[in-house]
Amino acid sequence: MRESRDVFHLAIPVYDLARTEHFYVRQLGCKLARIYDDRITLDFFGDQLVCHKTEAPVGGPPMAEELDLYPRHFGVTFRQAADFEALHYLCVERDLPFFRPLGIRFEGMVEVHRTFVLRDPSDNLLEFKHYADPRMMY
Amino acid sequence: MRESRDVFHLAIPVYDLARTEHFYVRQLGCKLARIYDDRITLDFFGDQLVCHKTEAPVGGPPMAEELDLYPRHFGVTFRQAADFEALHYLCVERDLPFFRPLGIRFEGMVEVHRTFVLRDPSDNLLEFKHYADPRMMY
Amino acid sequence: MRESRDVFHLAIPVYDLARTEHFYVRQLGCKLARIYDDRITLDFFGDQLVCHKTEAPVGGPPMAEELDLYPRHFGVTFRQAADFEALHYLCVERDLPFFRPLGIRFEGMVEVHRTFVLRDPSDNLLEFKHYADPRMMY
Amino acid sequence: MRESRDVFHLAIPVYDLARTEHFYVRQLGCKLARIYDDRITLDFFGDQLVCHKTEAPVGGPPMAEELDLYPRHFGVTFRQAADFEALHYLCVERDLPFFRPLGIRFEGMVEVHRTFVLRDPSDNLLEFKHYADPRMMY
Amino acid sequence: MRESRDVFHLAIPVYDLARTEHFYVRQLGCKLARIYDDRITLDFFGDQLVCHKTEAPVGGPPMAEELDLYPRHFGVTFRQAADFEALHYLCVERDLPFFRPLGIRFEGMVEVHRTFVLRDPSDNLLEFKHYADPRMMY
Amino acid sequence: MRESRDVFHLAIPVYDLARTEHFYVRQLGCKLARIYDDRITLDFFGDQLVCHKTEAPVGGPPMAEELDLYPRHFGVTFRQAADFEALHYLCVERDLPFFRPLGIRFEGMVEVHRTFVLRDPSDNLLEFKHYADPRMMY
Amino acid sequence: MRESRDVFHLAIPVYDLARTEHFYVRQLGCKLARIYDDRITLDFFGDQLVCHKTEAPVGGPPMAEELDLYPRHFGVTFRQAADFEALHYLCVERDLPFFRPLGIRFEGMVEVHRTFVLRDPSDNLLEFKHYADPRMMY
Amino acid sequence: MRESRDVFHLAIPVYDLARTEHFYVRQLGCKLARIYDDRITLDFFGDQLVCHKTEAPVGGPPMAEELDLYPRHFGVTFRQAADFEALHYLCVERDLPFFRPLGIRFEGMVEVHRTFVLRDPSDNLLEFKHYADPRMMY
Repeated sequence: MRESRDVFHLAIPVYDLARTEHFYVRQLGCKLARIYDDRITLDFFGDQLVCHKTEAPVGGPPMAEELDLYPRHFGVTFRQAADFEALHYLCVERDLPFFRPLGIRFEGMVEVHRTFVLRDPSDNLLEFKHYADPRMMY
Repeated sequence: MRESRDVFHLAIPVYDLARTEHFYVRQLGCKLARIYDDRITLDFFGDQLVCHKTEAPVGGPPMAEELDLYPRHFGVTFRQAADFEALHYLCVERDLPFFRPLGIRFEGMVEVHRTFVLRDPSDNLLEFKHYADPRMMY
Repeated sequence: MRESRDVFHLAIPVYDLARTEHFYVRQLGCKLARIYDDRITLDFFGDQLVCHKTEAPVGGPPMAEELDLYPRHFGVTFRQAADFEALHYLCVERDLPFFRPLGIRFEGMVEVHRTFVLRDPSDNLLEFKHYADPRMMY
Repeated sequence: MRESRDVFHLAIPVYDLARTEHFYVRQLGCKLARIYDDRITLDFFGDQLVCHKTEAPVGGPPMAEELDLYPRHFGVTFRQAADFEALHYLCVERDLPFFRPLGIRFEGMVEVHRTFVLRDPSDNLLEFKHYADPRMMY
Repeated sequence: MRESRDVFHLAIPVYDLARTEHFYVRQLGCKLARIYDDRITLDFFGDQLVCHKTEAPVGGPPMAEELDLYPRHFGVTFRQAADFEALHYLCVERDLPFFRPLGIRFEGMVEVHRTFVLRDPSDNLLEFKHYADPRMMY
Repeated sequence: MRESRDVFHLAIPVYDLARTEHFYVRQLGCKLARIYDDRITLDFFGDQLVCHKTEAPVGGPPMAEELDLYPRHFGVTFRQAADFEALHYLCVERDLPFFRPLGIRFEGMVEVHRTFVLRDPSDNLLEFKHYADPRMMY
Repeated sequence: MRESRDVFHLAIPVYDLARTEHFYVRQLGCKLARIYDDRITLDFFGDQLVCHKTEAPVGGPPMAEELDLYPRHFGVTFRQAADFEALHYLCVERDLPFFRPLGIRFEGMVEVHRTFVLRDPSDNLLEFKHYADPRMMY
Repeated sequence: MRESRDVFHLAIPVYDLARTEHFYVRQLGCKLARIYDDRITLDFFGDQLVCHKTEAPVGGPPMAEELDLYPRHFGVTFRQAADFEALHYLCVERDLPFFRPLGIRFEGMVEVHRTFVLRDPSDNLLEFKHYADPRMMY
């Protein structure tokens, strides 16, 4: 388990603060915390996500095939299947951009888990997971 | 607050698994969870850090001036000052590589906080924070 | 004590959604949750505040003497003095509109408590309290 | 989530302290905390409700059609469906005055929730909710 | 520790329901939960006290010397000294009837604790304790 | 809810310390905490029970019809039905002396609950309860 | 219940640190905490296991019949059946060395429980249990 | 942290059940849970200690110099210094047999901790610890 009163924080690059707020707050259901000219901060499932305004890459957004889940992505692993399923349902209902649909990884192994990946407006990849065995969450 | 039984997870690139384990486990005091040929997973202050083996950049490690804390870094914001101070003490005592020493950000503002930044063997930047006002942790 | 996973919710009238968001999110440090054309919802110290767009009264805002703390107001009673004090400090530093400055009520009685009251842009009155004896919080 | 040791407090107008106590304590099952000549305080599902004695409006109680759930009402959103259902059952069994019967709002949307509304003896409206997705509780 | 969601319950004899409510609710600061013709129930520091209407003994209330703390009494042992001290302060300020003033028992032994005893209107004796060593609370 | 780190304590008369220990520890599954010549203390479902050695009444134990559940008895109200049922099962399996078998009180009312009562070797009556609606536990 | 922030610690003899790490971390899914030349420490289901490098007995490992579960063994008793079952599944799937397969002890008694026992590379015996009645966990 | 509702269990050899109960319950302040002819079980600081009756070694108890803290011992690491200090005080006041007096280990290192060791009547060694840095508790 983790200290519930501490907070993990992650800083990521985003191309447009308004589109970022739209994706994370209006669509994904996170909460907007603080607003500055060059960044916004979010309560992302109880942790802090700091979105720094960055220049978008020249030449427009990459094609899906050009993006790689590895080595960089982030997200939340839910302890309760119901929380994982509620989020997946929200993502489908609100038509959020999926990078990878719902699937299973490490099938046949003790660390088997369900997972799906979203793509935010700045091509950051967000993975959400639920493990069959909670001890495998690390 | 956050759900203490959920876990934030972050995937980062690392150049050498043995050096990564040395830094995070032996030096930083995190715990090693799972080991594969191409990655290791860590219990990082209660959240999951997945370190993916990646090719180191040609030309050797960047100079400190070439590294930028923005837009990407990660870490933990401690609720209790004692936890923040204990970690800083550990980092000094064990001579961990600092990218930025202990300092204060947003001084004079309600969101003032203490912070220091480490540099891991793969040039990932880790920031640890403690806010004067816990409501500013987001 | 209360169930930490339940949420108290309060619906209040507001005259202007943008000014409301500015007051509650940028100034008071609450978090913006959901946005509609006719209302916004906020994570208000962990409870839900729903701000409904309403017609402002004809004749402009009342004078302070015309507003009455009774019978309607709302707010939070903090268990920890440090949380109460941190919020008061924030309100002073950010120059929030006070309706009543920091003071003491029921002095000399067991239910003595410190209190201050803010006035939001729609003339809703927000009272924050800290009791000397936590059993008097009800 | 919210700090379980803090308490939300709301001050509302009531016309008659005895009838108020009857409704909230004997009927709704809340607990009576403190009693003064001009107000009573209640432990309302773990939060504080302060009922201030106020003059009833001339001309008797409004008709149901004259009351409006917007913009003012308050209540509790339950995390657990069982708690919501137990309360609804109590309200039906004890024949409490309903302003709106059990129904569903925002159907077809992620923020769908069940709700019912009571009317207290002073025409304050109390809404109780349960969301399909707990992240929509704000 | 104990299960915080369970409740200890105790049934005691009382001679007069109104005087009992006055003592426990108005004076001691407990909360009134349910009211019947022959009993009232109280939220007594988080546990349930059920006060059953009983015939008062013929010949009037006993003298203090006739009452014995042993073998029957009840109360709460506080984990935090501050809670114990706040209650004692309330009892002194509100002039509650003490059966034994604040004192120390088992002095010089590991199970040393501070204690005071109240006498309710029906001659039930209430003891409140705080131990120097919390492991001695059992 | 109640403070899980506080402890309710009750002092009761017992006729024989060895028989008391046998009943509460070996049979009922409570834990023995401290032992003196004239009393023993028990961890009774997380609260403290202090059993004071007292003279047994002349003429032997009362008949069941002579004992009265009112106005004095004590016990635990379980939040979880499973805990209530596990204890009842233990009492039946271990053939503990029942004063009242498993039954329902206040049937047809919101405060309906299941209950059974044991009789300890000193004729103290122990009632264990489980309410359909947890808000009725007070 | 126990203090979740305290930790039970046990020191055991192991013959080979690398084999020990393989068993406890790679196979059993515990986490490696600290590494010295003569010992390693593990986060063993939230408690601390300290494995001290010791000389293996001359004559090779004992036969299963030579090992005795009594009087020395250690392990975890799970409150939730699901946690017990998940661990047993992991042990079977990863082909961990069982000393005793899944079975039932004290059948027909209130303290009935399911149990299985593993044998680590140094012939330490690890027992994992789940009781039908949680009050029998002590 | 660990799951507060799980329990670590340890089985140890003891030579005499009565002397064991005297040491652990009357002296050390643990609680007696279950009693059989060949073992007793204890609530040892919230975990389970099962003491199995075993033949004492021929030739009487070893001299202190013959006993070795390594590789086998057990105990509790306290999160709070106050809990560690209260226990040490109890051990001194009640004149428990110390194997090692209060001292400091790993001085000058981040994993520095205070420790003392007791010797039970069966020559089992019990170590109690408190770390300066809680992250070093594993």
